[in-house]
Amino acid sequence: MKIALAQINVIIGDFERNFEKIASYVKKAEAENADLIVFPELTVTGYPPRDFLEFKDFVRRAHETVERLKPLSHQTGILIGLPTVNPRIEGKDLYNSAVLLYGGKEVFRQHKTLLPTYDIFDEARYFEEATSWQTVDFKGMRLAVTICEDLWNLGNENPLYTVNPMDKLARLDPDLIVNLSASPFDYLHARERIRVLRANVKAYGLPIVYVNYAGAQTDLVFDGGSLVMDPQGYIRLEMPFFTEELAFFDTRDFAQPAGDAERSKEKIPLIHDALVTGIRDYFGKIGFRSAILGLSGGIDSAVTAVLAAEALGAEKVTALLMPSPYSSEHSVTDALALTENLGMPHHTLRIDEPFREVLAQLKPYFGNRPFDVTEENIQPRLRMIYLMAFSNKFGHVLLNTSNKSELAVGYGTLYGDLAGGLSVLGDVYKTDVFRLARYINRHKEIIPRSIIRKPPSAELRPGQKDTDSLPPYDQLDPILYHYIEERMGPDEIIGRGYDEVLVRRVLKMVNRNEFKRYQLAPVIRVSPKAFGMGRRMPIVAKYLD
Amino acid sequence: MKIALAQINVIIGDFERNFEKIASYVKKAEAENADLIVFPELTVTGYPPRDFLEFKDFVRRAHETVERLKPLSHQTGILIGLPTVNPRIEGKDLYNSAVLLYGGKEVFRQHKTLLPTYDIFDEARYFEEATSWQTVDFKGMRLAVTICEDLWNLGNENPLYTVNPMDKLARLDPDLIVNLSASPFDYLHARERIRVLRANVKAYGLPIVYVNYAGAQTDLVFDGGSLVMDPQGYIRLEMPFFTEELAFFDTRDFAQPAGDAERSKEKIPLIHDALVTGIRDYFGKIGFRSAILGLSGGIDSAVTAVLAAEALGAEKVTALLMPSPYSSEHSVTDALALTENLGMPHHTLRIDEPFREVLAQLKPYFGNRPFDVTEENIQPRLRMIYLMAFSNKFGHVLLNTSNKSELAVGYGTLYGDLAGGLSVLGDVYKTDVFRLARYINRHKEIIPRSIIRKPPSAELRPGQKDTDSLPPYDQLDPILYHYIEERMGPDEIIGRGYDEVLVRRVLKMVNRNEFKRYQLAPVIRVSPKAFGMGRRMPIVAKYLD
Repeated sequence: MKIALAQINVIIGDFERNFEKIASYVKKAEAENADLIVFPELTVTGYPPRDFLEFKDFVRRAHETVERLKPLSHQTGILIGLPTVNPRIEGKDLYNSAVLLYGGKEVFRQHKTLLPTYDIFDEARYFEEATSWQTVDFKGMRLAVTICEDLWNLGNENPLYTVNPMDKLARLDPDLIVNLSASPFDYLHARERIRVLRANVKAYGLPIVYVNYAGAQTDLVFDGGSLVMDPQGYIRLEMPFFTEELAFFDTRDFAQPAGDAERSKEKIPLIHDALVTGIRDYFGKIGFRSAILGLSGGIDSAVTAVLAAEALGAEKVTALLMPSPYSSEHSVTDALALTENLGMPHHTLRIDEPFREVLAQLKPYFGNRPFDVTEENIQPRLRMIYLMAFSNKFGHVLLNTSNKSELAVGYGTLYGDLAGGLSVLGDVYKTDVFRLARYINRHKEIIPRSIIRKPPSAELRPGQKDTDSLPPYDQLDPILYHYIEERMGPDEIIGRGYDEVLVRRVLKMVNRNEFKRYQLAPVIRVSPKAFGMGRRMPIVAKYLD
Repeated sequence: MKIALAQINVIIGDFERNFEKIASYVKKAEAENADLIVFPELTVTGYPPRDFLEFKDFVRRAHETVERLKPLSHQTGILIGLPTVNPRIEGKDLYNSAVLLYGGKEVFRQHKTLLPTYDIFDEARYFEEATSWQTVDFKGMRLAVTICEDLWNLGNENPLYTVNPMDKLARLDPDLIVNLSASPFDYLHARERIRVLRANVKAYGLPIVYVNYAGAQTDLVFDGGSLVMDPQGYIRLEMPFFTEELAFFDTRDFAQPAGDAERSKEKIPLIHDALVTGIRDYFGKIGFRSAILGLSGGIDSAVTAVLAAEALGAEKVTALLMPSPYSSEHSVTDALALTENLGMPHHTLRIDEPFREVLAQLKPYFGNRPFDVTEENIQPRLRMIYLMAFSNKFGHVLLNTSNKSELAVGYGTLYGDLAGGLSVLGDVYKTDVFRLARYINRHKEIIPRSIIRKPPSAELRPGQKDTDSLPPYDQLDPILYHYIEERMGPDEIIGRGYDEVLVRRVLKMVNRNEFKRYQLAPVIRVSPKAFGMGRRMPIVAKYLD
């Protein structure tokens, strides 16, 4: 059987455009005489549709889209995902389903069993789980159709579910496991995926055809990497990461000896590509073409500028240099050097005068109180006003340049440098931002070396350094990682050998600053635990505080 | 059996303080010779603890707290909620449990069965559902212990669950249903609660003792209203709304004839009290004592100021008047009249000078482009700078004054008037803001009548009115209600007789402005569908757009 793996990128809720794309891929598969074309999970709606699923109108349109696809299924079977209506009164109203269209009609339907409800996933919010399981005989092969998480309960030390749908399907003696996925990227995910799929082929002695999305949906980046694995666990095909593509695999090739089709999965290059994809699709899918950002001469805004230039073209990214009275000379020269290296439009605006006027208005109320965080914060807020003015006037989207370390401890100004429509580096710890910068410079110096080498500073008062308020990042980041990614408590982290006072101080800072992160833009997710939908914390709380 | 209903207010994760409070209530109950004291759901952690539940350290502290309560249970049984560890490897790691402490030890444990996973609820994210059900014989009565949602699958046209734990418990022939709840307020909820509890007493022929929290957790307000209902469905006790309190009920009193103990449940007074509670607890639990807000002379900021004054004391709320070049004379005089009525500290700052300086800096780039939304937005952003400067300098929390109608259609300036740590009116449609204002003035004119009467305007350009950009609120609000609260699609709303062009325009505005709401402060929830955790929409999407 010749199978087409359609690793596509769709727009959530754009039924017309999604139909056109799906139809075009079906035609390509048909032209290559494919027996079957497999799409990702919830194909016609896009993933995750979130609370749009609560609108009957939305679900109806998904069904209409599938109706329109049926006439295209006379030659190549179409295996596609959509929400379907639960006919029972009891239980959630929807199933997360895969349907096989062939000969102009629906010939098979299987619902998803394991509904991920953790991190960024909310599927138990919408869907009822499958309680019956069938295989489908199609063109001489018996297919076990599964949807994403259905294969992910195997090979875990602490399985989340008490049932394994493949156990049920295996009893029906299938020849092949097919999996429709919407599996978002993190820098460990591509390896994890292969480990989990291998646990399945070993457990059931069956090959797997796995199809994932490629492309970003706001904060989530789907990394593609669709693959075919043989019953011995060898990767017969691994599709590229982050790129929409159509690939073919003929199941007769399982009889051939296996080569090595696996792709490199290095952390920093993957993060780099994920962030570029995240920016590109955020703009492309909303219909914006240009970005604006503040370039401070520091490493975060430099890396953000490079990533934006890669995603949109340097000419579509405008950099504003807005030195304050406390900015060093090299901040401006470094930032200018970067814009020259990139060929990026840039303007320099002064914040001194409006800063002075604002302070004058406040003077009667503040009297002789000392300069403090109040006056520091006014500066990034004035910069935000310039940035948003350019955004409003020219239709640019403001990119946020905050990194995960500073977001974690609240080292940033709400409505100032924390502003922006999309947070590019909000899931990248500062130490990894440095690694990204060096990766960007791997062939030639794009980011001036002095930007990478200088000690980080917000430059909001004379001689300020990040280390005045924060521990050095090489001490801070591991503590944050234990707390955020690994959910360790204070005693456990201290038990790893970290200074107790430091650990308690850091954890308190993280919890106290939840209110700032709550108002942050969507953060492109590249780690297993990003700020945003995947990490839901109370704001008013006193844990570790 | 004499039962103490402990309708308390706790702080999420503040185990020490929660222990002290629980212990003090146990002592009061003991002093009154109560046989049993019943607390709300997840008592020791507070509700909702959200992802703190993923921290083993957090769960361990909850268990330690219960250990410390055991020695207090020698006379009065303590029925209390906490997360307990699922001993099986498969499934989620926790149960949402109720335990009965008596004689210094745990004598009974029942897990929650129905795990709400919709709107603001995420329980399937954390908990495994109960699969076994027992009653407990205690001091001569057989108790069926249920937790919140466990009673909420009855009496629905479209039940969410396929199981009813009370069906299982009823077979064991209990005498009394006890329910530990954490049931957040909306203006329909108190009525709905009584309807649902009545369906249960009728179905099982059993009385119910229901205990809920009183007090707010960030965006969620728990309204109390704990109650005792007899098997005939009569309310024998209904505790006050929003107030922490201890009440007693002796089950022997069921033999007495029933009086009418039900409290009034009018929408606008309930919303008023919920908002005051929401403000009071946000400040009180974080440890802030004072607020700041911008007073424009419009109705939203006026109502917010009154509610804040009720919650915190007028002397703890500072109002800034910040007229723009386009503000009318009456805006200032109306705002001043309000501060005088309230006795509220207030200052007047001009935004003209910094506005002029900002425009001067932008002039070289904007040239002769016409005045547009860019220049409009700079004004509320400058106001934000003043407000946040006062916030930073004096430790005030900035209150957001946006209403639900304008948030829905995106009629507000990100990082300008949309700023603030807590959104007071973000779940109140403009037409209800007017009702709230009239309710506030029911005894005397607190909000000057001219504020209520004048046509709404943002005053960001000469002669501006809200109706320049938006349909009149009495047309807009019903369409928003159908779309947001009722999840109707466009055809369904048009079918109700609304103008098609208007409906499509409004729905598109709602969906296009998701990015603004994403960055909004927590909104005090008073409706069945508030912006925030309970309404999860994709930002990058093209549904109805």
